[in-house]
Amino acid sequence: MERDESAVAAFVTHDFAAARRAADASAARWRAGAPLSPVDGMPVVVKDMIETIDLPTQMNNPIYAGWASRRDAAGVHALRQGGAIILGKTVTTEFACGNSGPTRNPYDTSRTPGGSSSGSAAAVGAGMASMGFGTQTHASTIRPAGYCGAYALKATHGALHAGGVTPLAATLDHLGLIGASLEDVWAAAMVISRLVGGTPPHPGISGPMDVPPARKPRCLVRLATLGWEETPESSRLAFEGAVAAIAASGVEIIDGGNDDDVSALESELRDIGEFANDLLAWEARWPLASYRNHGASMVGSRIQDLLARSATMDAARYARAVADREGLRARVAALATRADGFLMLCSSGPAIQDHGFTGSRNYALPWTLVGGPAFALPLLSAEDLPLGLQLAGFADRDSDACSIAAWLRDTLLSKDGGEA
Amino acid sequence: MERDESAVAAFVTHDFAAARRAADASAARWRAGAPLSPVDGMPVVVKDMIETIDLPTQMNNPIYAGWASRRDAAGVHALRQGGAIILGKTVTTEFACGNSGPTRNPYDTSRTPGGSSSGSAAAVGAGMASMGFGTQTHASTIRPAGYCGAYALKATHGALHAGGVTPLAATLDHLGLIGASLEDVWAAAMVISRLVGGTPPHPGISGPMDVPPARKPRCLVRLATLGWEETPESSRLAFEGAVAAIAASGVEIIDGGNDDDVSALESELRDIGEFANDLLAWEARWPLASYRNHGASMVGSRIQDLLARSATMDAARYARAVADREGLRARVAALATRADGFLMLCSSGPAIQDHGFTGSRNYALPWTLVGGPAFALPLLSAEDLPLGLQLAGFADRDSDACSIAAWLRDTLLSKDGGEA
Repeated sequence: MERDESAVAAFVTHDFAAARRAADASAARWRAGAPLSPVDGMPVVVKDMIETIDLPTQMNNPIYAGWASRRDAAGVHALRQGGAIILGKTVTTEFACGNSGPTRNPYDTSRTPGGSSSGSAAAVGAGMASMGFGTQTHASTIRPAGYCGAYALKATHGALHAGGVTPLAATLDHLGLIGASLEDVWAAAMVISRLVGGTPPHPGISGPMDVPPARKPRCLVRLATLGWEETPESSRLAFEGAVAAIAASGVEIIDGGNDDDVSALESELRDIGEFANDLLAWEARWPLASYRNHGASMVGSRIQDLLARSATMDAARYARAVADREGLRARVAALATRADGFLMLCSSGPAIQDHGFTGSRNYALPWTLVGGPAFALPLLSAEDLPLGLQLAGFADRDSDACSIAAWLRDTLLSKDGGEA
Repeated sequence: MERDESAVAAFVTHDFAAARRAADASAARWRAGAPLSPVDGMPVVVKDMIETIDLPTQMNNPIYAGWASRRDAAGVHALRQGGAIILGKTVTTEFACGNSGPTRNPYDTSRTPGGSSSGSAAAVGAGMASMGFGTQTHASTIRPAGYCGAYALKATHGALHAGGVTPLAATLDHLGLIGASLEDVWAAAMVISRLVGGTPPHPGISGPMDVPPARKPRCLVRLATLGWEETPESSRLAFEGAVAAIAASGVEIIDGGNDDDVSALESELRDIGEFANDLLAWEARWPLASYRNHGASMVGSRIQDLLARSATMDAARYARAVADREGLRARVAALATRADGFLMLCSSGPAIQDHGFTGSRNYALPWTLVGGPAFALPLLSAEDLPLGLQLAGFADRDSDACSIAAWLRDTLLSKDGGEA
């Protein structure tokens, strides 16, 4: 494990002196028995797509060199009000959808940390911070959390206020929380929900401030995605081992082999790539086209490609993509009476040895589209690297999903002999 | 009529040299028979809450002195792509909800231009620009347009992309268009709809690029609001005269005196002020609280008041406000089978002689909450000042409402002897 920033390159900017002062103030509050919230004193890093009142927001593109928003994004504002310590800004891919940054995976610096929330996942994975803000528009929170051995929550779409997160595709953009523990992630989510709520009119996550009590699910769906075919054997075995342990604990497992509704959902998941690309390209026309007005050479090739795709589209094709997503959501919702959640990996195996490509989106994309909560749980390993287990839940049942995530953690860690 | 910027003070910043160059390029395109769109060459001003790639966005607050967003807001981007000439940025009240700016009404500089889109309405009213971008969160487009003798469209909520408009209260914020003619306003709306659409997932307004053919409505609702009681006799008479002329043209007029559903709607409209304030205060906690973190003295008294109100609220009270709004929307929607639109004034009489107060919101607030399209039509006068007639329509039927607005214009101007 590499814990040295010089090797990991998670940060873009930081103000450790200010963080030190904020930490001292927090320590004084705890000594006085009057912390502001459960996140008082929590060291937090912020993806450089998310506005901060004190540090620039530069989006890994030269147009935004030194750019100051002069306000905190809603989520950052809430955590700071709750006493959290903002350490600095972390590397993102260009505008969270373009070319990669310099960050390396703390478990093996020859590997990618994943993206686009590269720096936040790497900083948390390396133990530099307890919580990192990310975003997820296709796969950008769950994938890097899995690659870097971190917990994460991509809450129900809109349930965590996205104000001050530079928009990319409004109906896909999620604020993501990457943390060193389920407790860190959940506390951050609840402080945000209590202090600023969701993106209006979403009221925010409702639930207890602390992680809800672990709850053993009655039935989980073992969900195959396009990612399964890409997944190496050792990672498949790690996943199968976890599913077997869960089943051995008395949880019913249904899958495409024994359940027609799951089989139909899996069939539908094979075709999401195209309409997901259409949703992204169409919704991101603005602001990407405005960035390109600084000069075509000012934006990278992936952004050019997205704009080129949108130029081949019309409103009718966008409407079909929206309808396709609605169909997917209906298939998932129809399982709510029989299942408590969905089990997948976070990624097609552990972090890959490629710094230009942040990894396949095929495990994380489905729940971006479904819009329900998804947790990354760093409970597995393969090739001596972390491998994330993903628990996905039903929209606006984030607290239920968290209680199952807690049970999975307790159950799988105890099976592994209490690894912490 | 005062047409001199030194008397009206509509602008905050401008770049007339750049505008001149853009206008020359536009003229060359027209000469070559190849304009980019119907707005090619249109002189446009932009409320200083809305981002522009070339001029600062300062929001009438010192925190944002000189602040550059480095991109165009979605609507500005679309019009610029269509060849429109961006002249400059116009005065807003502080953050579109606080204290007033220096702008004066071009029809009488002792009077307010209205707000919060003060400068855009005054610039269009004074003939300095053909189109001005505004915003409306409570009354900020329809009211100043009425005060300044301008046309305006507050489209269906979300139908004009609000990206790059500094958010205040997401479910209330509308991009507003204030123009010298119905043609200007509609062309701007359609170019925006075609090039960037609505705020995702709204596809934007569907309809023809030119103003749809005037259509005589079968039935209009003469709608009383709380504003009626505030309205001086001469303005009431002007409104009644217009309604009488419309009725004389063979349009059925229903109102609270002869229709139980309208009467019930009018009763409900008496109580919207409190829940509208709750929606605004709760949704605007962020970003207003983050601005206040620069120091309490950095934000004005109205913003302090909004933050204080939000501190007395909880999520349940916000949920009641959302439900109250849903109830109002259902009452309006229930009239869609019998009526084609709603007639009101834009304001409680012509512009008032008060520069600290931009006027009553009681005529413009209802359709902000309803979320349907509303047109300001400068077809009336009282006290030798312009008085706006408001035509409000049903959600996502913006083009239908425009065709009725065109008929009202044609009918009422011909009655007045062809005044242009």
